[in-house]
Amino acid sequence: METPGQPKAQSFEQRIPEGDDRLRRVCQDCGFVDYENPKVVVGSVATWGDKILLCRRAIAPRIGYWTLPAGYLEIHESAVDGACREAWEEARAELEIDQLLGVYSIPRISQIQLIYRARLVTPDVSAGPETQELDLFDWADIPWDDIAFPSVHWALNDFDAVRGMTGFAPRGNPAGETGAM
Amino acid sequence: METPGQPKAQSFEQRIPEGDDRLRRVCQDCGFVDYENPKVVVGSVATWGDKILLCRRAIAPRIGYWTLPAGYLEIHESAVDGACREAWEEARAELEIDQLLGVYSIPRISQIQLIYRARLVTPDVSAGPETQELDLFDWADIPWDDIAFPSVHWALNDFDAVRGMTGFAPRGNPAGETGAM
Ligand SMILES: [Zn+2]
Ligand SMILES: [Zn+2]
Repeated sequence: METPGQPKAQSFEQRIPEGDDRLRRVCQDCGFVDYENPKVVVGSVATWGDKILLCRRAIAPRIGYWTLPAGYLEIHESAVDGACREAWEEARAELEIDQLLGVYSIPRISQIQLIYRARLVTPDVSAGPETQELDLFDWADIPWDDIAFPSVHWALNDFDAVRGMTGFAPRGNPAGETGAM
Repeated sequence: METPGQPKAQSFEQRIPEGDDRLRRVCQDCGFVDYENPKVVVGSVATWGDKILLCRRAIAPRIGYWTLPAGYLEIHESAVDGACREAWEEARAELEIDQLLGVYSIPRISQIQLIYRARLVTPDVSAGPETQELDLFDWADIPWDDIAFPSVHWALNDFDAVRGMTGFAPRGNPAGETGAM
């Protein structure tokens, strides 16, 4: 008997389903086709005055490293709502979204990241369950050597590049960079 | 015996998997958790001179209605590459991407649409398998009454709103519009 929550060992095979033109993961037990899709990450570079909110990760991957409040968009959620939800979940932060700062593609892991520039409504932030600690950093104090992901570097540098600008085109991956770690 | 390509009848139930905090579709046969994710649609408003490329859909939904070259981002694909691939698949069109025109959220169907402003490299376009016919339209001749989806209206109107502008912030859903049809 199968215990709920205990999936059997992997029984997927790679196969081209009827009417499709690509290999997909198909369950050999029940025929379920796992149409893998790219995932959308939504997040923010959120500021209070000149200070930037960063969170130290309490979860894998990259536990203990610093990141922006960001995470997977949920179903039935708009991109802006998702960025606000993630800021609340990870930093108990309330955001006022300014504009889209960057659209980053990380093809190796099939991620599209939408990172917004935002202002904190209040400086009262505190660590949510996925965050060890957090802080509002002056630019000069950002812990560059302990940043969790390349795209966090990109977003921070892009934030700096558009400082004082409004109505700018969102930035993309730095030339030649794919986000591989 | 199970015939390949013939999935059994639906055997998913809604349940909160171990370590999760939301209802997910879980297969009752094998325990597979279907982490539904929002889908990313990539596309373009592509022009040759002042003319805009539109395609008449040869597939459901909205067969026979006019749309922009757009479709689901594939795994391991960047957003810009996906927009170019879709233009090729649907219109045999080669694009030079200009900049991100709009980011539209359609929460009801969990879609994020990234629509780029682009130029055709040549005016030699022709219908791909998912397209009945296509044409390069002057603005005044766009078949507004036969447009496939609300977001096609949005992207066309946004294209018009930023005519002659460079380095603009991408547009979003018109105020209050969710894309429900
Ligand atoms: Zn199965
Ligand atoms: Zn199953």
